[in-house]
Amino acid sequence: MWLLYQFPLCPFSRKVRLLLGEKGVPYEPVRESPWKRRDEFLDMNPAGQTPVMVHSERGPLRPLIDSIAICEYFEETVDKSAMISGTAADRAEIRRLVTWFDTQFFRDITGPLLFERMEKRLVHKMAPDSKALREAMKAVVAHLDYIDYLLDNRSWLGGSTMSLADLAAAAQISVADYLGGIDWKSHGQAKRWYIGMKSRPSFRPLLAERMEIINPPADYEKLDL
Amino acid sequence: MWLLYQFPLCPFSRKVRLLLGEKGVPYEPVRESPWKRRDEFLDMNPAGQTPVMVHSERGPLRPLIDSIAICEYFEETVDKSAMISGTAADRAEIRRLVTWFDTQFFRDITGPLLFERMEKRLVHKMAPDSKALREAMKAVVAHLDYIDYLLDNRSWLGGSTMSLADLAAAAQISVADYLGGIDWKSHGQAKRWYIGMKSRPSFRPLLAERMEIINPPADYEKLDL
Repeated sequence: MWLLYQFPLCPFSRKVRLLLGEKGVPYEPVRESPWKRRDEFLDMNPAGQTPVMVHSERGPLRPLIDSIAICEYFEETVDKSAMISGTAADRAEIRRLVTWFDTQFFRDITGPLLFERMEKRLVHKMAPDSKALREAMKAVVAHLDYIDYLLDNRSWLGGSTMSLADLAAAAQISVADYLGGIDWKSHGQAKRWYIGMKSRPSFRPLLAERMEIINPPADYEKLDL
Repeated sequence: MWLLYQFPLCPFSRKVRLLLGEKGVPYEPVRESPWKRRDEFLDMNPAGQTPVMVHSERGPLRPLIDSIAICEYFEETVDKSAMISGTAADRAEIRRLVTWFDTQFFRDITGPLLFERMEKRLVHKMAPDSKALREAMKAVVAHLDYIDYLLDNRSWLGGSTMSLADLAAAAQISVADYLGGIDWKSHGQAKRWYIGMKSRPSFRPLLAERMEIINPPADYEKLDL
């Protein structure tokens, strides 16, 4: 069995979990809090970040580390539900958008929300900074505008079929949504796409999980936003 | 002909250029200063970052954006000198290390050095912050230790053959070295590996380039450090 070291609000672990769900790869989540910098975890991954995957019986000798490397690994080894498909140019566009959500969306929205509303409360016992929260909310509008723009021209974010770009985006948005950061007002197209993502069986286990102390808004799990 | 939008000290463009050099793909560098946020460049890449590649005649309709997506594109379309090769587990290890150098090395060393010694001088007309520089120099020791550790067990950083991991590492190190950030003292193994990288034909055009106003140390181009 694959073990996946993660915590419920890690957006990069969520991206991997959505991919594993779509591909039907069974795994067992193992709770890891990277901010505790546990020695055994740092020995596995010197970068100190989730997700990390190891196989309890067979599988690669080394742990799989880094969400991009993990997604490419399962894309290469499991044929079912290809998530980086099409021509080389199509695949480049999918990978560009994965980086866009992993990096830009995370830097502007998910990262600040996790720091202000999770880490400060859980680790530092501090109140969130309202200026940082306001800036993240402003960035949400720009990012949802961009998703609307992509969906004006395509059925899915990365092209004509569902891809890792949709999973990366939904993973980040779901964490921001859990932390009360998403306002869908005047983003009907993005909202319809996200409801579609939420209805997928791969999404259900993620929506059912809770992070200690922190509760999501009432409509977090709902399919009619 | 491929056009590559970049500036001489962009470590991510350097990684792509090393890959193109190893694979024998001709390209023409086009100077772009992402900090100027030129409208036409933002229209091409909303993330506003180099490298971006376009083909002047044929090639994909959309620009290639993001250094990881670009490297995977040429790895998929050009057979010569495979740089992400081996088993799926080997390829995961190569990709993990690419992320390590792109993210951790950049965050700890290249990013701060570029900000303090290039951007502050070029854009803000300010002196560098000596505390930030000291911290980057301290991080260099830890990162060269890690490279030594990898080379204790392998011929190249990512495994038994040269890979994208070596190119990603050499790209970051070469920029840090240009900015006076690398001290090889007591890192003989890492130093020998880097001299080997510097001697490759793919590296020569990079070492010959200069960034306006900013000059590299005297031994920057030397092969006997």
